[in-house]
Amino acid sequence: MALIGKLVVCGVGLIGGSFALALRDRKEVGHVVGIGRSRESLGRAKALGVIDEIALDWASALDGADFVLLAMPVGQTDAVMEAMAPHLQAPTIVTDAGSTKHVVMASIYHHLDAQLSRIIPAHPIAGTEKSGVEAASTALFRGKRTVVTPLPENDPAAVEMVRKAWQACGALVVDMPPQDHDRVFAAVSHLPHLLAFGLVHELAGRANAELLFSYAASGFRDFTRIAASHPEMWRDICLANRQALVGELDQYLGELALIRSLLLSGNGQRLEQLFEEARQARTKWGEAQAPLIPSS
Amino acid sequence: MALIGKLVVCGVGLIGGSFALALRDRKEVGHVVGIGRSRESLGRAKALGVIDEIALDWASALDGADFVLLAMPVGQTDAVMEAMAPHLQAPTIVTDAGSTKHVVMASIYHHLDAQLSRIIPAHPIAGTEKSGVEAASTALFRGKRTVVTPLPENDPAAVEMVRKAWQACGALVVDMPPQDHDRVFAAVSHLPHLLAFGLVHELAGRANAELLFSYAASGFRDFTRIAASHPEMWRDICLANRQALVGELDQYLGELALIRSLLLSGNGQRLEQLFEEARQARTKWGEAQAPLIPSS
Repeated sequence: MALIGKLVVCGVGLIGGSFALALRDRKEVGHVVGIGRSRESLGRAKALGVIDEIALDWASALDGADFVLLAMPVGQTDAVMEAMAPHLQAPTIVTDAGSTKHVVMASIYHHLDAQLSRIIPAHPIAGTEKSGVEAASTALFRGKRTVVTPLPENDPAAVEMVRKAWQACGALVVDMPPQDHDRVFAAVSHLPHLLAFGLVHELAGRANAELLFSYAASGFRDFTRIAASHPEMWRDICLANRQALVGELDQYLGELALIRSLLLSGNGQRLEQLFEEARQARTKWGEAQAPLIPSS
Repeated sequence: MALIGKLVVCGVGLIGGSFALALRDRKEVGHVVGIGRSRESLGRAKALGVIDEIALDWASALDGADFVLLAMPVGQTDAVMEAMAPHLQAPTIVTDAGSTKHVVMASIYHHLDAQLSRIIPAHPIAGTEKSGVEAASTALFRGKRTVVTPLPENDPAAVEMVRKAWQACGALVVDMPPQDHDRVFAAVSHLPHLLAFGLVHELAGRANAELLFSYAASGFRDFTRIAASHPEMWRDICLANRQALVGELDQYLGELALIRSLLLSGNGQRLEQLFEEARQARTKWGEAQAPLIPSS
């Protein structure tokens, strides 16, 4: 018997589409309904066999729904939850795929607080350079991690159902408190992008920018590779996660203040120790990584 | 007729050894004398045919010398110049290979101010992961840039001689004022290394460091690759160039303060514009780079 009878996917793009395809492939879903803002892209999803039916409204989508995946851009979360609220039935399990959890939590508590037991935020970590349902595949989540960030009010059986659904897609499921999640990704993903954007932007604005860039070499290349990332996507991530991001930035500013004082006082010994500790940590991490890294 | 009759190389390692080999290869040097702290490594240089003779002291080394390349670690510059001073003859041209120029300038003005016309600081930009005379080659400088940073007091004919010597090694020679040089390299090489060391060090010191690193992905990998660099070498570079480096760090801190305020005020439009400007600059630079990049 399939894990999910009627699945509703809001936002049938790369993530939502791949979720549907993976479950279909494993025969773990019966009927897939798509809902979203673009009738045109939902039409393409249906033509590709990713979904069985396009819902015209939330009332019909949620009628008899077993499981809902919210995979639209995280900035639409609040509007979507407000629209769902009058029609969400008690047994239905809801999860999402947003890369920031506190924004999603705020909307859940605001609009769906009557059903907190069965609304479980999650974050599948999967490649994001491509987008759109044409890029969706059954294999997107295989071997990749999905972080499930349960609310205190969640029913354990409902959380387990969400885990099983992601595992059926081939994902490795891990649990984490939602606020920890946001700080972790702010620290190791969002902040580095911000720092790289900042350095390139600052140098590019100088009168002698061309001279400066002409002397930049391989270290600069690696450090700033992520400064070529998609501006709108990173605007959205930074806005959604700005609370955690400012916290992480402030920690880093503390480190830079330490480094600045070591430079001014010419403390070579402490600088060397700091560089050595970094080198050891980075080398150890690099050796552990080889096969595992998806796009950040 | 060879460009240089008697060449003295102080510090016959990767840089000094390659300079000698390149000039020999082009038959632009007659007799090569090596001098330095390690009799053992000078012995290896002689056995490899990189130098013809090991000098036991500066008096014999500088007797009748046409050209001197100072290629020992930049931290030894002051001691070396002090030792050379009593023996340096008027016609002899002196240049160096240090990656920071103001430290070298200070020592020149301190110890060799009687011969300012013929002492020309320079910086060959060449690969530095390898070291030692065994790694020296005739081709190290081919197609790579050497920055010549003349002092105001330098005799133009002497400067031209230094240019010709580096050109004979295959280097592309460019001129730059010494203080500009230090700021340029602080901005595009030294600061990124410092920033990467700082991020990795700060995260590695946290109680949940293992968890954080376990969620780091490809963006983090690229951004922090240079945090695996050689701690002692970067200690020396940061100490030698700390004046310029603090100046560059302060500029960058200004950029981070701007970004921080944009995050706090949720100014998505300005953030996106900043990211887009960075992306354009980085992409344009990346496209221009392909064949040219030595290690930074």
